[in-house]
Amino acid sequence: MSLPKLETCFSPSLLHLYDIKDSIVVIIDVFRATSTIAAAVHNGAAEIIPVDSVAKCIELGAQIPNSLTAGERDGKVAEGLQHGNSPLEYPRDFIENKTLVLTTTNGTRLLHMCSDANEIITGSFLNLGAVCDYLVSQKKNVLLACASWKDRYNLEDSLFAGAVYESIGKHFEMNCDSTRAATHLYKAAKNDLYGFIQDSSHFLRLSKFGLQYDMEYCCKINEHNVLVKLVDDKLVAL
Amino acid sequence: MSLPKLETCFSPSLLHLYDIKDSIVVIIDVFRATSTIAAAVHNGAAEIIPVDSVAKCIELGAQIPNSLTAGERDGKVAEGLQHGNSPLEYPRDFIENKTLVLTTTNGTRLLHMCSDANEIITGSFLNLGAVCDYLVSQKKNVLLACASWKDRYNLEDSLFAGAVYESIGKHFEMNCDSTRAATHLYKAAKNDLYGFIQDSSHFLRLSKFGLQYDMEYCCKINEHNVLVKLVDDKLVAL
Repeated sequence: MSLPKLETCFSPSLLHLYDIKDSIVVIIDVFRATSTIAAAVHNGAAEIIPVDSVAKCIELGAQIPNSLTAGERDGKVAEGLQHGNSPLEYPRDFIENKTLVLTTTNGTRLLHMCSDANEIITGSFLNLGAVCDYLVSQKKNVLLACASWKDRYNLEDSLFAGAVYESIGKHFEMNCDSTRAATHLYKAAKNDLYGFIQDSSHFLRLSKFGLQYDMEYCCKINEHNVLVKLVDDKLVAL
Repeated sequence: MSLPKLETCFSPSLLHLYDIKDSIVVIIDVFRATSTIAAAVHNGAAEIIPVDSVAKCIELGAQIPNSLTAGERDGKVAEGLQHGNSPLEYPRDFIENKTLVLTTTNGTRLLHMCSDANEIITGSFLNLGAVCDYLVSQKKNVLLACASWKDRYNLEDSLFAGAVYESIGKHFEMNCDSTRAATHLYKAAKNDLYGFIQDSSHFLRLSKFGLQYDMEYCCKINEHNVLVKLVDDKLVAL
């Protein structure tokens, strides 16, 4: 029996090179959209609606009862929205049973670019285990899709791709240099993920806003170990 | 005094993200265009004319006295051309004082995409030292541009980018995750570059044509240590 295929895409600008119609696409935006999504869903959010513009976010927030608007542009809370893009902003006593309408610079944009995918789930270190277990169980082709930063390759998203492959690679056929590079990178980083990531563009960018603790939190493996899937344009716990 | 900037671009599909007008662009196609170019120039080729189509290659070859046509598509000698894309095909007693008209799947295509660059040189392990010395001497911004394989990230070109940064990084300002990842990768590979590269898509592809020895040759650092620059659309020794 042939194994399903696993590949990694380092940037939305490379997405056209991959066939996503027959694949589960894992949207990866470690700093911080998919980390925030894992935390909010794990803490009981009813659903998360990812949208690609601030205007749409405000519009939906006004229409949907018991909802919150959240999101960032260039690392800061976007003007007109109520909340930011931090996993720490959404504890259970705040987010439980609410709908979060979310827009971010990279992650939610990539998610909309992947609308043709067979299935979409979101991945971050906070829910690495749940992502891996699900991918193994489904026996389908997988594309690990890094949100990157404005289409530029970034370290943190490819580190997550490497963590996934290191964990479940044996269940897949793989002939993809992006996956190989991500796995080498993760091997170099895994003993001190947070230390390693401090020499990265995104860490340096967000540190200027005092968000070091946020990023340290995003490196906690399985802290919010929930599987998040896009169903009817909404991200929900599976 | 501020240092010039060094960045790495992993794929021609990402080239639009970088400002090449003020940069020296290093075209990197380790397997095998820029390795072949280094060998042919080092062995005395009068000049190399990189062209982007087989038809153009045949046309120029017929016009230019004392010229050879060469090139590959998908790893094999392209139909209608006289020679292939191997650094071993161009010893001194064969190539000296001749003009090589060359077209390849990835390297020569990227070279033409970079026509707006401030300067273009070509890089491979065979001429790593000459590339590094030149970049340090020029004190200009640098873009290490990986030819990749049909726009997909590849290991061998980013390994070369990592080798450059590891060697001369202190002379540049760098805040580029692609460069960081390439450097981590090179550190993992450098003690056995040829062994490391055997688990890569391009190695597996070219091995099917029996080209292992060719690729082993492409991993020899400074074997053809010449600086190759594009001058009036021709690649020449500087």
